[in-house]
Parts: sequence; structure tokens; C-alpha cells
Amino acid sequence: MYTLSTSKAPYHHGDLRAALIAAAEALLTRLGPAELSLRGVAREAGVSAMAPYRHFADKDALLAAVAGDGFRQFEARLREATSAAPDARAGLIAQGVAYVRFAYDQPALFRLMFGPLITKAVALETLGRDTLPALDALQGAVAAAYPEAEAQRRDDLVLTCWSLVHGLASLIVDGRLPASAQVAEAMAERVLRVLP
Amino acid sequence: MYTLSTSKAPYHHGDLRAALIAAAEALLTRLGPAELSLRGVAREAGVSAMAPYRHFADKDALLAAVAGDGFRQFEARLREATSAAPDARAGLIAQGVAYVRFAYDQPALFRLMFGPLITKAVALETLGRDTLPALDALQGAVAAAYPEAEAQRRDDLVLTCWSLVHGLASLIVDGRLPASAQVAEAMAERVLRVLP
Repeated sequence: MYTLSTSKAPYHHGDLRAALIAAAEALLTRLGPAELSLRGVAREAGVSAMAPYRHFADKDALLAAVAGDGFRQFEARLREATSAAPDARAGLIAQGVAYVRFAYDQPALFRLMFGPLITKAVALETLGRDTLPALDALQGAVAAAYPEAEAQRRDDLVLTCWSLVHGLASLIVDGRLPASAQVAEAMAERVLRVLP
Repeated sequence: MYTLSTSKAPYHHGDLRAALIAAAEALLTRLGPAELSLRGVAREAGVSAMAPYRHFADKDALLAAVAGDGFRQFEARLREATSAAPDARAGLIAQGVAYVRFAYDQPALFRLMFGPLITKAVALETLGRDTLPALDALQGAVAAAYPEAEAQRRDDLVLTCWSLVHGLASLIVDGRLPASAQVAEAMAERVLRVLP
């Protein structure tokens, strides 16, 4: 049985998993992915060194869970941005801005979600599935903004929007386009103006 | 003095530097950045373990030199693509396609050039300078394709083109959009069609 070193009550099963993911996310931001270990995550969460193995086979599995959690936060941000907009076109633009802002706010998490850090096939499969709801949010926003567009045209617009905001987000996150949060959002609006 | 283990003649000064960069690039592709060490690069180049220190203070300095060499290859590919096109607009599209194709052909090098692998301030400064000629090629292609555009509008178009192709390249390189070389080029053409 795992024991807690910082709290009186032991975690329930689901709570431990969530606590480990939260601890891993905090460490990822603080230390970067290379320094992150299951042992360090256990320490951060205040549980025994073996406790993570109840939920995760290895570091890649834990990272995939963190990325999956990231994609759920990401999807929520994208959908919120769209639903708060006055019309469908503004909703698409707002979603693009939210995409870039999410990357700006959580660069380590964004890199984990989209970068090459997760390499094991099983973890990549999980990650691929976890990406879909966010991509679905984008497809929905494009379909709403271009209701007349045929399937092929809509696919082109999805690919175009995704490339635009993902490229800008990556260039900002990787320091190629230094920006404040406000400048990052303004740049997102500028590039999205190219949409028909 | 450094000695060669695989060749009869010792390298001249500049040759050794070039040989070390070539060896590092080969290892980067074969092993990935984490496994790359100055010692391994020396072995790959067939020189003594101390020889790399004649040219590079540490691994980051060597990586920055590899990225710099990558940016020179990259710039040459971008300019070639533009100059082979029949007109300025086709030249801009061809350059965008070449950008994505370069990333497709040399994913490890592309990641090194644009990713977060290089972290030391001195190496980052070198890298920032080495990026400029490639960016200049893009700015030139945009200026030629939109000769009437005013400065602000041209800046917007540069940012838009860069985001588009960098985003698509990143999504392909990181396995989000699995593609053959041909499909990668076709996708680049599809997203660039959004340009005015």
C-alpha cells in the first residue's frame, strides 16, 4: 500500500491518479521533461515512490496522461472561446486566438501535447485519441463559420486554420517570436485575418 | 594535437570544424539530441575525444553550429525554390512548399533549428543571428509577390506565411499529420492557397 507523507488521509484510487497528473504537470513546468521521473512525481504528490506504478507503467504513460489532461483543458478553452463570440466567424477567430493563448500560458504542456517527447507506441496511441476532441472543436468552428462550404473546401479550411495557429503558437513558445500575452493574441488576430 | 583514428591525413583547422558538424548532424538524425555527446561526435568523425573542444565549448555550442549549418542549407533551398518559379507569386508558394519539404526531409535538424533543444544564452544568440537570412528569403518573396503592399501589410503577410508553413511543417514532423513527401507538398500548396 502506498503511504502519504504530507497529508493525513490516503488518496482514493481516482484521486491518486489525478494528484499524480497534477504533480507531473507542475514538475514539467518547473523542471522540463528530461528531469521528470516517476520517483520525483511521487515525491511532489507526497506519496510513496511505488505509488505511481499503480496507475502508470512508466514515465511515457504518465506523460501521455498529462498530455491527455492538457488536451481536455485545451478543448474546454477552445470551445469556451467560440461559444462566447457574437457570431460563427468571430467564434472561429476567437478559437484561434485561444489556441495561441493556451500555448503561451502553458508552454511546457503545449510542447508535451504536440512535441516529440512521448515516443512509446502505446502512449502515442492514447495521445492520438486524446487529440481528437480538440480537433473536433476546430472542425465545428470552421463548419459553423463556413456553412456553405463543401467537404473538401471545409477540410482545406481546417488544415489552414490549424497550420496558422499552430505555427504561430510554436514560433512564440519556442522563442522565435518573443511576445507578451497581449502581443501573442494580437498576432493571432493578425494572421487569422487572412481567412476568407 | 588531435589524432585521427580512421583516416591517414589529419584534418585542417576548418575541415575539422566542418567534419564535426557533419558528424553531429548524422548522429542527431540517428540517435536524437539527448543521446548526442561531444565524445560521440568525436568518435563519429574519427578524431580524438578532446578534438571537439578546439572548436566548441560544450554540446550547446556544437548544437548551435549544427543548427546554423542547417539554416544555411534551409535558406539555400528556400531561395532556389523561389528563383526557379515562373513569377513572384508562384515563387512565394514554391518557397512555402520548400519550407515544409525541408522539415519533412530533415526532421531532426528542423527540430533542432526551431525547437527548444538549445538553451544556453550564448548559443541562442548565435542561433538567432543564423535564422535571419532564411527569414530574409521569406520577406523577399513576400515583397516580390505583393509589390504594392505597404510595410504593415507586408509584415502581416510575412507573419501569416511563416505561421502557415511553420505550423504545417511542425504538425507533419511531430506526427500529427502523417504524410509522404508528396502529400506534405500537396498540403503546403493547399494551405498556401489562402493567401490573397
